[in-house]
Amino acid sequence: MLTYPPYAFSIHHDGSGRYVQSNSGEGGLRLGDKVKIRLRAMSDVPIERIFLRACPDGEQEFIEMQPEQEGPACRWWEVTLRLTMPIVNYRFLIFAEDGAWWYNGSGLHRHTPTDAEDFRLLADYAAPSWVWRSVFYQIFPDRFANGDPSNDVLDGEFTYLGVPARKRRWGEPPTPSGPEAMVEFYGGDLIGIEQHLDYLTDLGVNALYLNPIFTAPSNHRYDVIDYTNVDPHLGGDAALISLRRATAEWGLRLILDIVPNHCGVNHPWFQAALADPHAPTAEHFIFYHHPDDYACWLGVRSLPKLNYRSMALREIMYSGPDAIFRRWLRSPYSIDGWRIDVTNMLARHGVDQLGLEVGRGIRKAVKEENPAAYLVGENFFDASAQLQGDCWDAVMNYAGFTMPLWHWLSRFEVRQYGRLIRPSSDLPWPTRALVETWEAYRAAIPWAIARQQFNLLGSHDTPRILTIVGGDQARNRLAAGLLMTYVGVPCVYYGDEIGLGDSRDTTARGCMAWDRSTWDEELRAFYQKLIKLRRTSPALIDGGFQVLLVEEDTLAYLRDAEEEQLIVVGHRGPGNRPASPLPVAHGAIPDGVEFIEIFSGMRARVVNGHLPLPAMSPGVMVWRAGS
Amino acid sequence: MLTYPPYAFSIHHDGSGRYVQSNSGEGGLRLGDKVKIRLRAMSDVPIERIFLRACPDGEQEFIEMQPEQEGPACRWWEVTLRLTMPIVNYRFLIFAEDGAWWYNGSGLHRHTPTDAEDFRLLADYAAPSWVWRSVFYQIFPDRFANGDPSNDVLDGEFTYLGVPARKRRWGEPPTPSGPEAMVEFYGGDLIGIEQHLDYLTDLGVNALYLNPIFTAPSNHRYDVIDYTNVDPHLGGDAALISLRRATAEWGLRLILDIVPNHCGVNHPWFQAALADPHAPTAEHFIFYHHPDDYACWLGVRSLPKLNYRSMALREIMYSGPDAIFRRWLRSPYSIDGWRIDVTNMLARHGVDQLGLEVGRGIRKAVKEENPAAYLVGENFFDASAQLQGDCWDAVMNYAGFTMPLWHWLSRFEVRQYGRLIRPSSDLPWPTRALVETWEAYRAAIPWAIARQQFNLLGSHDTPRILTIVGGDQARNRLAAGLLMTYVGVPCVYYGDEIGLGDSRDTTARGCMAWDRSTWDEELRAFYQKLIKLRRTSPALIDGGFQVLLVEEDTLAYLRDAEEEQLIVVGHRGPGNRPASPLPVAHGAIPDGVEFIEIFSGMRARVVNGHLPLPAMSPGVMVWRAGS
Repeated sequence: MLTYPPYAFSIHHDGSGRYVQSNSGEGGLRLGDKVKIRLRAMSDVPIERIFLRACPDGEQEFIEMQPEQEGPACRWWEVTLRLTMPIVNYRFLIFAEDGAWWYNGSGLHRHTPTDAEDFRLLADYAAPSWVWRSVFYQIFPDRFANGDPSNDVLDGEFTYLGVPARKRRWGEPPTPSGPEAMVEFYGGDLIGIEQHLDYLTDLGVNALYLNPIFTAPSNHRYDVIDYTNVDPHLGGDAALISLRRATAEWGLRLILDIVPNHCGVNHPWFQAALADPHAPTAEHFIFYHHPDDYACWLGVRSLPKLNYRSMALREIMYSGPDAIFRRWLRSPYSIDGWRIDVTNMLARHGVDQLGLEVGRGIRKAVKEENPAAYLVGENFFDASAQLQGDCWDAVMNYAGFTMPLWHWLSRFEVRQYGRLIRPSSDLPWPTRALVETWEAYRAAIPWAIARQQFNLLGSHDTPRILTIVGGDQARNRLAAGLLMTYVGVPCVYYGDEIGLGDSRDTTARGCMAWDRSTWDEELRAFYQKLIKLRRTSPALIDGGFQVLLVEEDTLAYLRDAEEEQLIVVGHRGPGNRPASPLPVAHGAIPDGVEFIEIFSGMRARVVNGHLPLPAMSPGVMVWRAGS
Repeated sequence: MLTYPPYAFSIHHDGSGRYVQSNSGEGGLRLGDKVKIRLRAMSDVPIERIFLRACPDGEQEFIEMQPEQEGPACRWWEVTLRLTMPIVNYRFLIFAEDGAWWYNGSGLHRHTPTDAEDFRLLADYAAPSWVWRSVFYQIFPDRFANGDPSNDVLDGEFTYLGVPARKRRWGEPPTPSGPEAMVEFYGGDLIGIEQHLDYLTDLGVNALYLNPIFTAPSNHRYDVIDYTNVDPHLGGDAALISLRRATAEWGLRLILDIVPNHCGVNHPWFQAALADPHAPTAEHFIFYHHPDDYACWLGVRSLPKLNYRSMALREIMYSGPDAIFRRWLRSPYSIDGWRIDVTNMLARHGVDQLGLEVGRGIRKAVKEENPAAYLVGENFFDASAQLQGDCWDAVMNYAGFTMPLWHWLSRFEVRQYGRLIRPSSDLPWPTRALVETWEAYRAAIPWAIARQQFNLLGSHDTPRILTIVGGDQARNRLAAGLLMTYVGVPCVYYGDEIGLGDSRDTTARGCMAWDRSTWDEELRAFYQKLIKLRRTSPALIDGGFQVLLVEEDTLAYLRDAEEEQLIVVGHRGPGNRPASPLPVAHGAIPDGVEFIEIFSGMRARVVNGHLPLPAMSPGVMVWRAGS
């Protein structure tokens, strides 16, 4: 529809350290800071003037940018912006020979956009800055390692929803679905995790995310019956204290999973409410008709929904001095943050749409305990409204990273409560659609949040990435390469690094394999290399993001910091990509710069604004500028 | 970037009555309603399945749409959506032969968009439904008509900010700027307005918006010193009571202008606060350093900003039982709504960004008094956050209508506190930019709000449209034609209809001319015809909006209701547009339909999916389908 001039794609700004500079250091931006905002473009573009457009206290303001000395490959424009509000949005107005352009988080526009995709800075935002250098590892506790068989659930030890608990043998395939799937136990526990911290450290990850560990009758434990105790079958509170001490020694961070949206039907609060409509905890729930008809999670009657109109509930959960959200952040547990279940639904119920209000309350409580705590919401959909600096620090980035990647590597399809809806034909999803979805979700939130988004390839709620790509090893690696180099914080789902399989029919909750002969060692080495890169590369820790190339089956992007530039090339196949020069001049890469590909050691030098890429089979290449 | 298939532009849905149908009638949608959602596309498009995608309580849901009987020019798809939340957003997922498409308020997308441009329905929203059939007329009271010379401000009657008040002779050009401009008075008053209700009725408008009338020392009266009395120089409370009675008799609605953001430096609240930092009203203001340094509107010290952290202030202004926002809605004044000054800045001050909270409070108070009251915020910028059904009913639609229209008809330029910033060259702003800006601002808000947006060509804060178009009569009419046919509620700025002039150097506050020999009678007749059309045409009152054509200097759009279809063609020139067929098949207009142009009476019949448009000089044509 719109024709861009050839120089358009050389105009770049994002919220990373090369483009937004203050004196506040890693603590983040402070109210009152004067921040240097920088934008670059190719040297010879017909730009006449550039203004930064902000809106302090709601009134439009234009500040003219000053062109700096021309560099070898680009010219920088700079301006100083004073932060006067907790969230400061801005975009650019560019007057060029061919007219006026607006430039915001979704690129150049002739039309005047709304503020929705403005760039955004956060002032006085309590950032969990440790996550910037972290790679997470997600563990489903019953399935990772059995460290203490004496605490295993026994066959028939209890009955839940009419089904007796069952002990399974390690490595047997889990029951795909139905009530039995919930009450089969493999014996994994916290001691088991503690015993394998050497494995995790060898892999290179430095942060753990554990699925729920509080007392609950199912193996997933989202049906919690006691928020204040670790399940004895996992080793109880003592095991968590021990694990916490050990992770600290190994230099691993630890976040836990909490379910504030609902509890288990067996929770004493709910049992009391069932027994007596005037019980003190009856107001924690929503009874349409007592006792039979009540609000619950997606119609699952064993998961009654909690009612945040109740101030008493809020106090117990987060606002009170010893609230559940607070207590686990304190010694001796001292967890580093929370993964919060179904934040898309939390505190939302018909006329009562209290999600943001409750989310802000949770943030306030948690950050009072530990300003560096990491708050990650679960959300499969657009969570932008809760990612503006006053609620979650991140969400599990299904919508902004994972799903579009799946569509690109497999096929376009959507899910409703797990049910697949897909087109009848199997046309590949365009590479441009991947790039534009990623862009849309980045553009909707501040960069300070985007860089902390919890990126993943799959989880306990999805098939594994290896299954998504139909067992295609090249695409499996490509996915890992993008996970580790995209904007955000990567998380490896346990076993993905060794090629653990599953099937499309089930969620990926199989047992971790400890027989090394079953491991895909090559894949694990590939993961190790990427994880190390992600944890140490300045360009990945705080670099900008700019798409350099979009082809039918290939994309390339630049991650750039002052100290380092990386170019990531992803090719999905099916066939090879022939040798072909990659345009890099619009990424401000001057001629003569040599790049080294980190896996193969191949070298290539920029000539006439292009990096001469060799032929490439499906997979990923990561080129680092030699210096 | 993205190539659309040829059928793409025939896919249409919006929030108007043809596409969203419920049994609730004009009262609007209710929580629990089952709403029929309809989408249309050309008959022969390769669409396989369509799903409506909603997100009740945050969880994604897909409902398959059913294709209905094929019509002569299109096929309809339908689905029933139940409203379970105050605001229900949805979009469509279309599986076609060529892959999957998302369809939302900004059209078709290959990539998965965020929810930002989802269609949106409001449940239990108190709509000011009378505005749907209204055309407003804005009056700056000192400059419209002097009905009672005995209440005129006398030369030197008082001194304001060191400048003595001055009486001016009717029709003399106002002082362009400076302190003198504020204290010159022409003697216009409410009696003068009442005496000219015959004129307004003859013009055809049926609602008045008056600039501030509460007691204040300047002629603009935004520096109010008493929110509870009409300025004696305008005739006092008695004149308002009389005007209200008269407007009711003539069938005219009446809204007033209120300034909750700041008051005048002479307001007793502020004088008391200056004299004593412990005065009860000191907390109404923000003193950085008492008494000299305080927050004020854009640095203008005579307009101290009100401090909405003060609950006492909120009570006086809106929340208390006899608050200012409430009292004028009651008998004998019974005004029909408020135009609220600078809602972009209201209750926003550094860390305290209370705009939405206070806006919601004002809405609650006002709707308690009169659910049909019309709340129009002033906002020159993107007001989408305050237009989601829980705050304002509309804003003065500068950003979503006026400014892009100005850019298209004149040149692209932006303003900062009135200072112009423009490119050095004078390239015309693309027609596509106009269409996309309009679209972006519609897509950001529910249709129920878009149809109520307060559209205008200019105001007391801008040059007149005739000045903006450089005196070009054809473009002046084109502007009026678009004002009266675009989605929203039009407002005529007093005198625009008779060709009253001004200059780019000043705001348009010249005296209304009552010597008919000076009027542009042809222009007035043109306005009369358009106003009548706007008030009676089903397609303009509740019709959909679909762009049919975008050319270099021409646009055409369809407004469609079940009972009526209108096609509006705007051509800005400079030259004539040659005769050329207009594609209309994608607007579901079948061959054989005859259209009649309402100004010229010309007829044309649709052939092969096109309406054969005759040659056209710059201006506007409005074609109505004969039936």
